[in-house]
Amino acid sequence: MPSDDSIHPDPDDPRLTERIRGFDQDGNPIDTRVVVERPLTLFLNGQEIVTMMTIGDYPDYLAVGYLANQNMLMPDDEITGIDHDDDLAVVVVRTERQTDYEARLKKKTLTSGCAQGTVFGDLMESLEGAVLKPDAELRTSWLYKLTKAINTMPSLYLAAGAIHGCVLCENDQPLIYMEDVGRHNAVDKIAGYMRLNGISGLDKIFYTTGRLTSEMVIKTVHMGIPILVSRSGFTAWGVDLAREMNLTLIGRARGKRFIALAGEERITFDSNDGADDPPREGAV
Amino acid sequence: MPSDDSIHPDPDDPRLTERIRGFDQDGNPIDTRVVVERPLTLFLNGQEIVTMMTIGDYPDYLAVGYLANQNMLMPDDEITGIDHDDDLAVVVVRTERQTDYEARLKKKTLTSGCAQGTVFGDLMESLEGAVLKPDAELRTSWLYKLTKAINTMPSLYLAAGAIHGCVLCENDQPLIYMEDVGRHNAVDKIAGYMRLNGISGLDKIFYTTGRLTSEMVIKTVHMGIPILVSRSGFTAWGVDLAREMNLTLIGRARGKRFIALAGEERITFDSNDGADDPPREGAV
Repeated sequence: MPSDDSIHPDPDDPRLTERIRGFDQDGNPIDTRVVVERPLTLFLNGQEIVTMMTIGDYPDYLAVGYLANQNMLMPDDEITGIDHDDDLAVVVVRTERQTDYEARLKKKTLTSGCAQGTVFGDLMESLEGAVLKPDAELRTSWLYKLTKAINTMPSLYLAAGAIHGCVLCENDQPLIYMEDVGRHNAVDKIAGYMRLNGISGLDKIFYTTGRLTSEMVIKTVHMGIPILVSRSGFTAWGVDLAREMNLTLIGRARGKRFIALAGEERITFDSNDGADDPPREGAV
Repeated sequence: MPSDDSIHPDPDDPRLTERIRGFDQDGNPIDTRVVVERPLTLFLNGQEIVTMMTIGDYPDYLAVGYLANQNMLMPDDEITGIDHDDDLAVVVVRTERQTDYEARLKKKTLTSGCAQGTVFGDLMESLEGAVLKPDAELRTSWLYKLTKAINTMPSLYLAAGAIHGCVLCENDQPLIYMEDVGRHNAVDKIAGYMRLNGISGLDKIFYTTGRLTSEMVIKTVHMGIPILVSRSGFTAWGVDLAREMNLTLIGRARGKRFIALAGEERITFDSNDGADDPPREGAV
């Protein structure tokens, strides 16, 4: 279970799910809960940047994390205000520095309908020379405790399904658990929390329910986090990038099984008997 | 099992997966297969439209389906050529009609980073007045046979995981099975196949491994298909749209269980004993 001061979604928040009447396989009426998605339009200093579909919790973290992960907010930028208007579905981030991304916003569309090509291009450039902490550690005993804690934590996933989750962890403790309909939103909310609270990624472990794609690898490296874990699988490009950037990449982490396809030198194999057993000393 | 002439991915195609050396939970070296994603840039009559990340099979279907689902290719447009250059990673669709979507490509970026807001807006407009066949039918006995056939069909999902699948079905038969790293690509490949082969969606059933989001509902309606089934869950907006458009929406279809949240009047509850039993006559 998470420590009491961990940040996580509130499955009982009535704004995040809707109760809907439907029918089961026998034609009997049933009530079920489904996740809500709503638009949120992000402005940076008066310039409209993007409209996101989100469950709508933590709009300030989502806004700041999105801008940080898109390199529109620089590490030394001073944030002078974040205004969220729930009725207008708008969040405005203001910085000391004057910003203008008109050219980049235009450029994106010219090459890519989902704007990924260019965004990735820009992000890749910003990662040149990025060094992830070489001697960061992941013990298998931590991993088993983490996945057990994450899987049993009260979540929208357990309450309603159809949602992605991301968890920032340190050693065997989940620190921040964010969920959203879009996986990129869940990542960005964690990035925003880290940015606004001055938390370094250096000694952290990042867990995601989603697949280990190139996008996920790039964002993890961008947050300075050396270890990325998923219960889902890999894509070949995600593996290539992780190896190039020396990121530890662990997938298909279910129960006491996993596969590591990059950066395995950070893994200490101290337990293959599971979370409830003490680590076996000297076992490798 | 699918009929021999069904269209489906080839899990043994060496271009679609890569064999990668990694380590398991005990630190033992293992080989595993992961799905490949590669860029494919789509041109319509000399205008660059989008760069897609795709596994790369069926580029012609993907190109035509993308354009059709984005309303850049109209129902009465004559396609005069489709040229795919594997080395350049480019596919060009040519039409009799002269096309120019410069304005729309620009407009997208101004409102939305992932371009969804505007794309959805345009698509929604095109769906006004769309009527799905009211008396199309889904028997639960068909559904159980379909899900069993789909789950046991040779697929990249079974071979390597980390991939989405979509299946076009008629009664209890899977007709076309497409997979891709992006769910939208799998849908678009089926839309392209339907368009190029003059197949109507009127009496079809659409199955997806992915969540029942607004995007999935809109594309299904756009293809004229009255019944959408998923093994995954729902979002509230997806349910709202399905009800508004009178689409039959079935989620969490696993084994002999499912939940219907819209259009349940098309369902015939003729079996709750599963695929291998004869339908019970008169049972509702």
